[in-house]
Amino acid sequence: MGGVGEERRSLPPTFNMDLTNLHVLSASEATRLIRDGVITSEQLVRACLNRVSETDSRVQAWAFLDADHALAQARAADEWRLGGRPTGPLHGVPVGVKDIIDTADMPTENGSVLHAGRAPSRDATVVAMLRAAGAVVMGKTVTTEFAGRAPGKTRNPHNPARTPGGSSSGSAAAVAAGMVPLALGSQTGGSTVRPASFCGVYGLKPTHGLIPRHGMFQLSRSLDHVGLFARTIDDLALLLEQLVGYDERDPDSRPRARIPYRDVAAEEPPLPPMFAFAKTARWDRVDDDAKEAFAELTDHLGERVEELELFDAAVDASEWHRIIMEAEIAVNLGREWEKGRDRLSASLQARIESGREVRALDYLRALARIPQLNESFDELFAQRYDAILTPAAAGTAPEGLDSTGDPAFCTLWTLCGMPALSVPLMQGANGLPLGVQLVGPRHGDARLLRTARWLVAQVASTRPA
Amino acid sequence: MGGVGEERRSLPPTFNMDLTNLHVLSASEATRLIRDGVITSEQLVRACLNRVSETDSRVQAWAFLDADHALAQARAADEWRLGGRPTGPLHGVPVGVKDIIDTADMPTENGSVLHAGRAPSRDATVVAMLRAAGAVVMGKTVTTEFAGRAPGKTRNPHNPARTPGGSSSGSAAAVAAGMVPLALGSQTGGSTVRPASFCGVYGLKPTHGLIPRHGMFQLSRSLDHVGLFARTIDDLALLLEQLVGYDERDPDSRPRARIPYRDVAAEEPPLPPMFAFAKTARWDRVDDDAKEAFAELTDHLGERVEELELFDAAVDASEWHRIIMEAEIAVNLGREWEKGRDRLSASLQARIESGREVRALDYLRALARIPQLNESFDELFAQRYDAILTPAAAGTAPEGLDSTGDPAFCTLWTLCGMPALSVPLMQGANGLPLGVQLVGPRHGDARLLRTARWLVAQVASTRPA
Repeated sequence: MGGVGEERRSLPPTFNMDLTNLHVLSASEATRLIRDGVITSEQLVRACLNRVSETDSRVQAWAFLDADHALAQARAADEWRLGGRPTGPLHGVPVGVKDIIDTADMPTENGSVLHAGRAPSRDATVVAMLRAAGAVVMGKTVTTEFAGRAPGKTRNPHNPARTPGGSSSGSAAAVAAGMVPLALGSQTGGSTVRPASFCGVYGLKPTHGLIPRHGMFQLSRSLDHVGLFARTIDDLALLLEQLVGYDERDPDSRPRARIPYRDVAAEEPPLPPMFAFAKTARWDRVDDDAKEAFAELTDHLGERVEELELFDAAVDASEWHRIIMEAEIAVNLGREWEKGRDRLSASLQARIESGREVRALDYLRALARIPQLNESFDELFAQRYDAILTPAAAGTAPEGLDSTGDPAFCTLWTLCGMPALSVPLMQGANGLPLGVQLVGPRHGDARLLRTARWLVAQVASTRPA
Repeated sequence: MGGVGEERRSLPPTFNMDLTNLHVLSASEATRLIRDGVITSEQLVRACLNRVSETDSRVQAWAFLDADHALAQARAADEWRLGGRPTGPLHGVPVGVKDIIDTADMPTENGSVLHAGRAPSRDATVVAMLRAAGAVVMGKTVTTEFAGRAPGKTRNPHNPARTPGGSSSGSAAAVAAGMVPLALGSQTGGSTVRPASFCGVYGLKPTHGLIPRHGMFQLSRSLDHVGLFARTIDDLALLLEQLVGYDERDPDSRPRARIPYRDVAAEEPPLPPMFAFAKTARWDRVDDDAKEAFAELTDHLGERVEELELFDAAVDASEWHRIIMEAEIAVNLGREWEKGRDRLSASLQARIESGREVRALDYLRALARIPQLNESFDELFAQRYDAILTPAAAGTAPEGLDSTGDPAFCTLWTLCGMPALSVPLMQGANGLPLGVQLVGPRHGDARLLRTARWLVAQVASTRPA
């Protein structure tokens, strides 16, 4: 039977300071211990590499991982600190990076044989930001083909016969399996929230444009987001804080006031938050045990939650999302289509073919819907709700590795560019993790994390002993 | 015979302080005299209104002009100053505003019977900026139908049997006829540079996105620009300085450092500028007398000018411009098309029909060319040239009022979003004005004005006595 279980953690909440167990540390804990000289980055990275050795033959989260190179970065971080120089907020902490995000010191193959051996000469903006914060770039995590639907090799760490979700398959799995405390992914449909739900970790797709995408493979400018994976909300906020910034090379990036994401996320809300439970037009696709888990969760929340029937425009959103994504994919994969379409998956070929026929009229009209939808949602948030509570996926990770699952529960929020977060708060009848998706208004990222923290604490406190 | 004539001015360069002649003042002169209490705004506006009475039955530059309302604004400006309060840079100066730019106190009909009686409740951003600078919004100037090709009623002030050009027909004509020292227009194809050339005034299309377009009728987000008309370069710089700013409601607006346009425009260039004379692929369309005038001008410039053969991509630009413009027009005029296509001009109907069939693939590919073209031009500017010198139009204003002339000499620069300026420096064999178009790199607006000032002074100094 499904239900609201313990807060899902793949790892025990406490541990002895056993150097072989350092991989269970959160990034926030680890960077503090490194700063205080209790542990070294090398010890931490070594523990994570050991964890990779133990688990990755089963999980296969990595597209590229050079242990020596990761250790060299860790030792450099340690030497830097020992030299008395100031350390960054992620000093010495290993981070996995999805293999559609360029790294100057590692290949970036975008999950396609067409880009095999591709070695970019520059770091993506987010990778440069990670390095500036002191992070160790652990390696490149497996992506589906061009962050689309065709799966990579990664398996769900909770059950290797099941998909980890996608397209950020390796990032979600690596964090869930304790190989790294943090990882970067992306989301154009449901590529962060869904794998986070399937793997039982936190997955955040922040507001569109908040994190610059320069140097990340562009599938769809209007829909592409950088995604974040972590095992705690504090870690998510810590990572987010490093990656928010203006980059004029991303046309959707804007200069904005700096927000202390970690501080806001850690605050107590002034009033208990109010949730809108949106079953969405696709509730009939949701598994029965997931429905039960939601019923239990909304029972827990009592009068802090109300069922919200979405307006009609929200129902049509998946079609607008499809039009925009396919039209932009057809352009962005134009070269690959011209030169090597026979080496693209059949599903991607079909998408490109469909995208090539989209009319500019329909494309531009679909784009024009986005601000209209956001206006409607902004009203809901302004008047009554702190967050929308909605499924992250139809249920737990489906069996098999031929599909990464159905992104349908994510497309509306991706289209709108609203911040969306999978919280690993429930489980299915099969004992596998099941995320709750929380969605906030555009640029309400910090408050969304605060609301999520409240929700997790609330469920923990009311949980039967 | 064509030739480089005197700097074209519709008005004598000096005048007695005769109150009936105040309309010949430049905005810079007028605002100084008002600030010093030598004249009042009411006197200035009254002189301009008298000029309207004398000339507008012939020119027909105005879509809306309420003399009492203009005088009331002028008196308010005078009272403000007499109250000892600080005055703005355009204090008391009347400005014409193209009738596709919203004004809260006057109708804005967009040149179409479909929008007859339209009365917006708010000022466009640029109108609010004008008012903040102390300007008097004189009235609304005639536009072609939705700033497209179908002419309005305005005639060329130099010869009423000829077109003033378009789509900013009324703004160019009103400034040329001395009815206002300044006016706002727009440019999506050649709608500022061409009428400026035909009417013998300065017309500037600044860098795309530099002046916010919120509250202006949107024909094509990717190509629409606010345009500026004046009778001196100093006035152009003064006006530009008031209108540059960030408005997050214009998706192409960006925060930028404030530039002292007037100061830069007034500076002596550190070295004599170098010009690239681009005949363009359409040189065969240029009238013989215009060709002669260009030959004389380039002779004057001697080694300061070199002929530049444009790269192939620049030749294809008009097709990309067409694809983008038609696709965006089809969306932006979608409502008018659905509800009243029989009341649109045949040429606009044909454009919309064509635009509805554009593929998103072709549209997005055309958009992707813009940064590539700008990279090529940026290299030219960085390596050798201060400005490109090129025809503003095929010749002087053509006869007849059925067409506003050929925008072909403007489309490349509009597509690229580069600053382009028509300088009233030449004349045709018929004695009518003929502009020289100067084009600079994106965000090189201030230097382009400085280069233009150098050019005008150079031609004046080398002109035979």
